[in-house]
Amino acid sequence: MTTLWDSLLINVTAATMVPGTVAYGLCPDAAVGIHAGALVYAGPRDGLPAPPETLARTVIDGRGLLATPGLIDCHTHLVYGGNRAAEFEMRLTGVPYEEIARRGGGILSTVRATRDADDDALTASALPRLDALLADGVTTVEIKSGYGLTTDSERKMLRVARRLATERPVDIRTTFLGAHALPPEYAGQADAYIDHLCTDMLPALAAEGLVDAVDAFCEGIGFSVAQTERVFETARALGLPVKLHAEQLSNLGGAALVARFNGLSADHIEHLDEAGVQAMAAAGTVAVLLPGAFYCLRETKLPPMDLLRQYGVPMAVSTDCNPGTAPVTSLTLMLSMACTLFRLTPEEALAGVTRHAARALGLTDRGQIAPGLRADLALWRVDHPAELAYSIGLNPCAATMTGGTLRWRDR
Amino acid sequence: MTTLWDSLLINVTAATMVPGTVAYGLCPDAAVGIHAGALVYAGPRDGLPAPPETLARTVIDGRGLLATPGLIDCHTHLVYGGNRAAEFEMRLTGVPYEEIARRGGGILSTVRATRDADDDALTASALPRLDALLADGVTTVEIKSGYGLTTDSERKMLRVARRLATERPVDIRTTFLGAHALPPEYAGQADAYIDHLCTDMLPALAAEGLVDAVDAFCEGIGFSVAQTERVFETARALGLPVKLHAEQLSNLGGAALVARFNGLSADHIEHLDEAGVQAMAAAGTVAVLLPGAFYCLRETKLPPMDLLRQYGVPMAVSTDCNPGTAPVTSLTLMLSMACTLFRLTPEEALAGVTRHAARALGLTDRGQIAPGLRADLALWRVDHPAELAYSIGLNPCAATMTGGTLRWRDR
Ligand SMILES: [Zn+2]
Ligand SMILES: [Zn+2]
Repeated sequence: MTTLWDSLLINVTAATMVPGTVAYGLCPDAAVGIHAGALVYAGPRDGLPAPPETLARTVIDGRGLLATPGLIDCHTHLVYGGNRAAEFEMRLTGVPYEEIARRGGGILSTVRATRDADDDALTASALPRLDALLADGVTTVEIKSGYGLTTDSERKMLRVARRLATERPVDIRTTFLGAHALPPEYAGQADAYIDHLCTDMLPALAAEGLVDAVDAFCEGIGFSVAQTERVFETARALGLPVKLHAEQLSNLGGAALVARFNGLSADHIEHLDEAGVQAMAAAGTVAVLLPGAFYCLRETKLPPMDLLRQYGVPMAVSTDCNPGTAPVTSLTLMLSMACTLFRLTPEEALAGVTRHAARALGLTDRGQIAPGLRADLALWRVDHPAELAYSIGLNPCAATMTGGTLRWRDR
Repeated sequence: MTTLWDSLLINVTAATMVPGTVAYGLCPDAAVGIHAGALVYAGPRDGLPAPPETLARTVIDGRGLLATPGLIDCHTHLVYGGNRAAEFEMRLTGVPYEEIARRGGGILSTVRATRDADDDALTASALPRLDALLADGVTTVEIKSGYGLTTDSERKMLRVARRLATERPVDIRTTFLGAHALPPEYAGQADAYIDHLCTDMLPALAAEGLVDAVDAFCEGIGFSVAQTERVFETARALGLPVKLHAEQLSNLGGAALVARFNGLSADHIEHLDEAGVQAMAAAGTVAVLLPGAFYCLRETKLPPMDLLRQYGVPMAVSTDCNPGTAPVTSLTLMLSMACTLFRLTPEEALAGVTRHAARALGLTDRGQIAPGLRADLALWRVDHPAELAYSIGLNPCAATMTGGTLRWRDR
């Protein structure tokens, strides 16, 4: 006698995103079996070994919808205090940059607001943003620290990120981004701050289990390659994987650095050159494309998509949700921007928020609809997966499943 | 003894959008009185003549939210058959233009699908798009015909547009756009089609009360200025106001033409010149900016915002919701694109979807929160109206009121 599966989803088209010969891994009239939070069958309904009702305790009618892997937002700064709408408005009304700075604009205004907020306030302000992502089919979210820049306030951010996973049906991955900006207390002493970060902050927070990965902002206006390398060496000593904000505004060689540390991803990379692409390809480092920041900053320099394709570097796509350069809380809108602004194909874009986004987080248990993986799905009111990148602002997400539990969205 | 108002909204900040000395017409701690579907008070709560509970049968707690006029989407092609996701994907995968045309792409594919769909099918396909707009704070939507291009199929589109107002709490304004494209039956005979339109189609549909305004697509790939003028003369004879798709891809002088007919609006206008701006200013014709189409087409030529400001031409902002060049169903996202791509200020953008959008439809009874106007409001989970243009994909709309009836949105 065989054990019944927990549930079996039928009457769906599945964009499994399993790479192979069929675009999107598309399977019309599919069936998806779920047991103990994992997928146990994914394939044609007529490939099921027996009638659905004899295989599972619950048969779920997919209503003819499209099933995709639950979306993965692999690069966000979702937890922060305040917002920067006033600064956005000042820029558009022609207030000079110095005046905006004088009135307390820029990243340090977010650092101030984040330090001033307690756990409850940070959680309350992050939840509407998280809810917007989840309403849009997201089931896994990476969240970075980096607006605290002291051990206590970075701890607070990471603790809030972990707490969000208890407040909503979502899996959260935390990234320590202490090397995001130089805190005002260390003005003119970047090396001393990196000392402090490597000696005190990161080891302490890692020991508390708050850190899943380590990131830095390697840029002329951020930290140097040498400083980033010290952060990465500390991460390696602690057994933590690394990723990097690299080559966004200039080409410093950050992508090659993160590749040398077998990093998970190099993110932004508008100014990445061929040597950097080769290094990433050799290391298996994912390129995380952030078209929302490109849009907000009115950038014109495109990431080197053709080189990334040529060398087989996987391309992920993410919101970069942050208060300064990308107040973005829709991952499906990033599918549109990845296609329209970066000329990804709709299939590349969807792989970028599923299979390749999982890889950018070092997760091998999700991002495709395949037996053995987590039962994280999104169901969509569309006929074809290309519509997810084509539509702008529609939000056709009908339901999500996380760990085998299905939740329908109200219209 | 005085009559009690139907309701009184308190505990809100009101961005009344009444022009004057205060940005956004902002009124903190406002009260809004509603009676018989109209606004009877809008101002400071402490300016009320008596305690709230003595003034109205129902006192509504605005929960500290921001109230704005209900948003007005003044330029859409919301009703159509099919979608063009496959064409979108073909373009991005490098399928040559001729091949896309051979496989039946382009506007005529939408004409075919629209002709083939019956009223119920057109309604069913339009409702998710309309629902997305309404979820985003919209209370009035303009809908154009123009994918039928026969009297019967244009009638069907306009009838479906009217029907949508009975299916959802929204006011719909219809626009006849028979001169949108040349139907295949008239290939090579544009003048004959315009004859037919002016002699048969438009008079018949106007007589049936299906037409609130008349529009045309005046462009090298559309209809000439002379042909457009004939359409406008027919509209004038029928007592219908006109508007125009003008100067989107080239400068043909369409804006000056529509101004000469005292038209409601000239729409797109990326290639508008100073003479056209002056003509619009003199006629009181509104400039309707469509940043979603600009985004989708990756245009680089910006509308002449500085000239429009200089001559005091009101600027409206709209989705242009259509299956080919702007599959857009979020008007708040257009606030972001109007600011980020067109450099409008957040206040100009919000005026563009309220006060100026009303004027682009010839409606003097809405678009501001002021006594005597329709009780159409949107309530938002934001502290300041600039956040509506700053946030991307958040949808902070908490409730809308149409004709005095308040509906809270589920989160
Ligand atoms: Zn970032
Ligand atoms: Zn249009």
